Amino acid sequence: VNLFWALDRMKAEATHLAALPDMTSTLLHDRLLEEAVRIDHEDKAMCTAIGRHGSTLLSSGMSVLTHCNAGGLATAGDGTALSLMFAAAADGKQIHVFADETRPLLQGARLTAWELQRRNIPVTLICDNMAAQVMKEGRVQMVITGADRIAANGDSANKIGTYGVAILAKYHGIPFCVAAPSSTFDLNIADGEQIPIEQRSPEEITRGFGRQTAPSGIDVYNPAFDVTPASLITAIITERGIIHTPTTQSIRDHLA
Amino acid sequence: VNLFWALDRMKAEATHLAALPDMTSTLLHDRLLEEAVRIDHEDKAMCTAIGRHGSTLLSSGMSVLTHCNAGGLATAGDGTALSLMFAAAADGKQIHVFADETRPLLQGARLTAWELQRRNIPVTLICDNMAAQVMKEGRVQMVITGADRIAANGDSANKIGTYGVAILAKYHGIPFCVAAPSSTFDLNIADGEQIPIEQRSPEEITRGFGRQTAPSGIDVYNPAFDVTPASLITAIITERGIIHTPTTQSIRDHLA
Repeated sequence: VNLFWALDRMKAEATHLAALPDMTSTLLHDRLLEEAVRIDHEDKAMCTAIGRHGSTLLSSGMSVLTHCNAGGLATAGDGTALSLMFAAAADGKQIHVFADETRPLLQGARLTAWELQRRNIPVTLICDNMAAQVMKEGRVQMVITGADRIAANGDSANKIGTYGVAILAKYHGIPFCVAAPSSTFDLNIADGEQIPIEQRSPEEITRGFGRQTAPSGIDVYNPAFDVTPASLITAIITERGIIHTPTTQSIRDHLA
Repeated sequence: VNLFWALDRMKAEATHLAALPDMTSTLLHDRLLEEAVRIDHEDKAMCTAIGRHGSTLLSSGMSVLTHCNAGGLATAGDGTALSLMFAAAADGKQIHVFADETRPLLQGARLTAWELQRRNIPVTLICDNMAAQVMKEGRVQMVITGADRIAANGDSANKIGTYGVAILAKYHGIPFCVAAPSSTFDLNIADGEQIPIEQRSPEEITRGFGRQTAPSGIDVYNPAFDVTPASLITAIITERGIIHTPTTQSIRDHLA
């Protein structure tokens, strides 16, 4: 939702500027570019702030599981979920990360694993269906994911599989945290039930690697994301701080 | 474990036959072949019996989720988990199956989906990380998997990801059933803690589809299977009948 927030901000700025006297197309272009650069800077600062707040939850020696990619490839700065790891590492904490490969598009294997490896943060790649076993073996002390959209009550939409990971974390008594800019909150949506779930192409599953991995003509169900209820979320970390036990009230207070 | 059970049975028969007077190598060969054919027939009958018992749990209109492959490609007959679907369909019940693709080797996508499609049982393929969402949407009324080895208390080892599916089923109030021949029980093992978990090659995850899907040199954790505790198992179906609420006692009674 914060991508549309940025577009809305650019549109509002354009409308405002276009109404000014003596506005020329060249000047409008330059002023809009300035605004875009300002958003870029704010985004970087926002990632840094999320990392700073969230990394207080991490202590040296911890191992964190993440799902999909919420790093520097998804934002202007260090990312949301991954910014915690980067900030903790910058503080000299030893953090290890388990990255779910995140079928069907493998953002965890292709993006998250790459980002962490490049930044010298120890990372272990697993298939999505191995998260439960890794938790059972006591190898993970926290789960941190990003979010695409967060409803007023804290229900959080994110890449498909996040909801399942949250249930597994709950079962194993492991904190499940969401890291996202405050612009991700959509207060027009009371709860996650009102978030429609997009279906994506069957070929992502049946031909996801350039070759056929399932019988021709097979029926496929391919939801792009899922919604994790606030009841499974231990904390939401934004650039403003940490919302412990997210509820409609605590979120309203946080954003006030 | 039942594969080794069959080998042990063949070895015992060979030892017994070799000790007989007037035994020749030709006769030994023929008698061992007869024994192997007998096992094949028993295996088929065993699958049929599992299907007959287990299909009483299925009613028309139900949708069942399964993980990995426990069908005709894994046994001499109709399989274990899948035999329930085949028996129900033979009784005229309308059954729909969700098949987890089962990373890393995709047995669900490549084998289960193919078997069911071939037998005209409606099947929908999903990625492993979609099972929770499918359950949340009320699309699944039962989970049925096979088992590689079952401890005396009912803890069941099966393909990696099974344990996670069992937790998700519990969270959503969906029965989780295991279908396996009684030869799968290993009464020498008190519980699942004593079952060692094999680690498999990293390339299964990083190059599972003939092309590289993760950065070079990435660390990988690849357990071959996991153990679902009996506390998450609603019922175990064998060729002898159904063990409701598996415990050391109810299993002992069942096998007596």
